[in-house]
Amino acid sequence: MLYIVGLGLGDERDITIRGLEAVKSCKKVYMEAYTSLLSFGLSSDGLSRMEKLYGKTITVADREMVEEKADEILTEASKFDVAFLVVGDPFGATTHSDLVVRAKKLSVEVKVIYNASIMNAIGVCGLQLYRYGETVSIPFFTETWRPDSFYEKIQRNKELGLHTLCLLDIRVKEPSIESLCRGRKCFEPPRFMTINTAIEQLLEVEESLGVSAYGENSRCVGLARLGYEDQMIVAGSMKELLDVDFGAPLHCLVIVGHTHPVEEEMLEFYSIK
Amino acid sequence: MLYIVGLGLGDERDITIRGLEAVKSCKKVYMEAYTSLLSFGLSSDGLSRMEKLYGKTITVADREMVEEKADEILTEASKFDVAFLVVGDPFGATTHSDLVVRAKKLSVEVKVIYNASIMNAIGVCGLQLYRYGETVSIPFFTETWRPDSFYEKIQRNKELGLHTLCLLDIRVKEPSIESLCRGRKCFEPPRFMTINTAIEQLLEVEESLGVSAYGENSRCVGLARLGYEDQMIVAGSMKELLDVDFGAPLHCLVIVGHTHPVEEEMLEFYSIK
Repeated sequence: MLYIVGLGLGDERDITIRGLEAVKSCKKVYMEAYTSLLSFGLSSDGLSRMEKLYGKTITVADREMVEEKADEILTEASKFDVAFLVVGDPFGATTHSDLVVRAKKLSVEVKVIYNASIMNAIGVCGLQLYRYGETVSIPFFTETWRPDSFYEKIQRNKELGLHTLCLLDIRVKEPSIESLCRGRKCFEPPRFMTINTAIEQLLEVEESLGVSAYGENSRCVGLARLGYEDQMIVAGSMKELLDVDFGAPLHCLVIVGHTHPVEEEMLEFYSIK
Repeated sequence: MLYIVGLGLGDERDITIRGLEAVKSCKKVYMEAYTSLLSFGLSSDGLSRMEKLYGKTITVADREMVEEKADEILTEASKFDVAFLVVGDPFGATTHSDLVVRAKKLSVEVKVIYNASIMNAIGVCGLQLYRYGETVSIPFFTETWRPDSFYEKIQRNKELGLHTLCLLDIRVKEPSIESLCRGRKCFEPPRFMTINTAIEQLLEVEESLGVSAYGENSRCVGLARLGYEDQMIVAGSMKELLDVDFGAPLHCLVIVGHTHPVEEEMLEFYSIK
C-alpha cells in the first residue's frame, strides 16, 4: 500500500490523526523535498521534530529522485506499507497525479489522506471560495523571460467579478549558471517570491499590455505563512501592499473581485488603516 | 480565545494534531450541527467516539443556536478558551465569516485551524485544481422553485475550458409543511442530493434553456463520501452516471472542461469500462 499523506500548512503538528496513524504503520517514509525546504528551510530542526513525532526515519526525496526512483518506491509499496508525505494536500497546488498514475498501472493500492492546502485555506481572508475564478501562477521574471499568460486570466476573472488567487513562484534546486558551465551539480539557494515582487511584476505587465485588468489602486489581499503561528494577512491597494514587509515565505496574493457585504466586513479587519 | 477548528472530511480521526491539542485545552466545545448530521447521521455512535477521542463533552449547535447564542459563545470565549468545531475547513464550502466578524468586533481573539474541505479534496479525481472555474451550487427543485442560475456559470466555465465543481444541496432542519400549519416545531428528515438527482435537474435545465452548455454526453466525475474508507469516484458521461448507485451521502459532481494528458490518465482509472 502507498499512502500519500497531506501534511497541511504549518509544522509537523498539522498532520491529521488518520495521517499520523498511517505513517506510524509504514515500514518506509518518504517526504517530498518541497516539504523539507518549506518546513526545514525555515526552521533547521524541522526534520528531527517530524521524525520524533512520527517515530520514523524520513527519507527526503527531491523531484529528481521521485522521478528516478518512482519504480523503486512503488516496488516497495507492493511489498509493504510505504508513506509519501506531501506539504499541504496531496492534490493541492502541486500535483502528485504522476505517482498515482504509475502506482495504478502497477496495481499498487494507493490511499490518499487529505489535508488543508492553500487552495482552501485562502478562505481565511474572508473572500468566499466559490467566488474565485481560475487560479494563476506568477513566475519570477528574468532578463529574457517575462511571461504574462496570467494577465488574460486575471482580466477574465475581473470581468466576471471573481477573485483571483495568485500563487507565487518557488525556485528550489535550480542549477547555478556557474555550475552548468563547469559541468558540476551545484544549486542556487532556494528563492521564494515575495508579495512585493509579485505586485511589481504585475504592474509592469499591466503597463506594457495596458488593458486595465488592474492597476496600482486595485484591491488585493496579501497573505504570508498561512497555518503558522505568525501568519499575516493584509488588505490594501497594490500600491499600499508594495510597502508592506510580509516577512518570511511563503507568500500569496489575492486580487479582489466583486464583493458581498460579509466579505467587506472581513476585509475591513485586515485593511491597512 | 475562540478556536475555530476544521474537522476535515472523514470521521473524528481527521482532525489535525494541532486541532486536537486546541480542543483538549478548551473549557467548552461546540460543534456546528451540519457536522453532527454528517458524521452521526451516518453512524449513530459518531458523537460519542468524538467525545472519547477529544476527551470533552461536545455541545451540538444548529445554525439557529449559533445565531441566537453567538454572543453567549463569544462572551465565554472572552473569559476562557472555547472551541467551535466545523466539518471540513472553517472557511470551506460553508463560511463562518459571520462568527469571526462578530468575534473581532468584540475583540475576542480568534485562531483558525485549517483542514481539508471539498474545495481542495476534489483534486483527488485528477483534474488540476487551478483549472477549475467558479464553483456552483445545485439546489433541490420544488414544484414551484426551479432556479437555474448555475447554468450560466457552467456555460462560462465550459467556454473557457475550465472544470466546474457542483456542490449538491443539503437540507437539514427544514420545518415540515404539516408542522408549519399546526404551529409546532417539527422537522423533515435531512435530505442530501444524489449525483443522479443533480444530473436529472441539470439536464432538465439544459432542455429548457437549450444553449448547449452541456448535454447527456458531457463528461463528468461523480464523487461520494470523500475522505471515508468507502469513498467512490466514477467518471463517465452524464447519461452513464445517471445509472450509477453512489450510495450514502455526501455526493458532489464535476463537469469536466478541457483536459491535459495527465488529467486524462487519471480519469481513465475512474472511467466506467
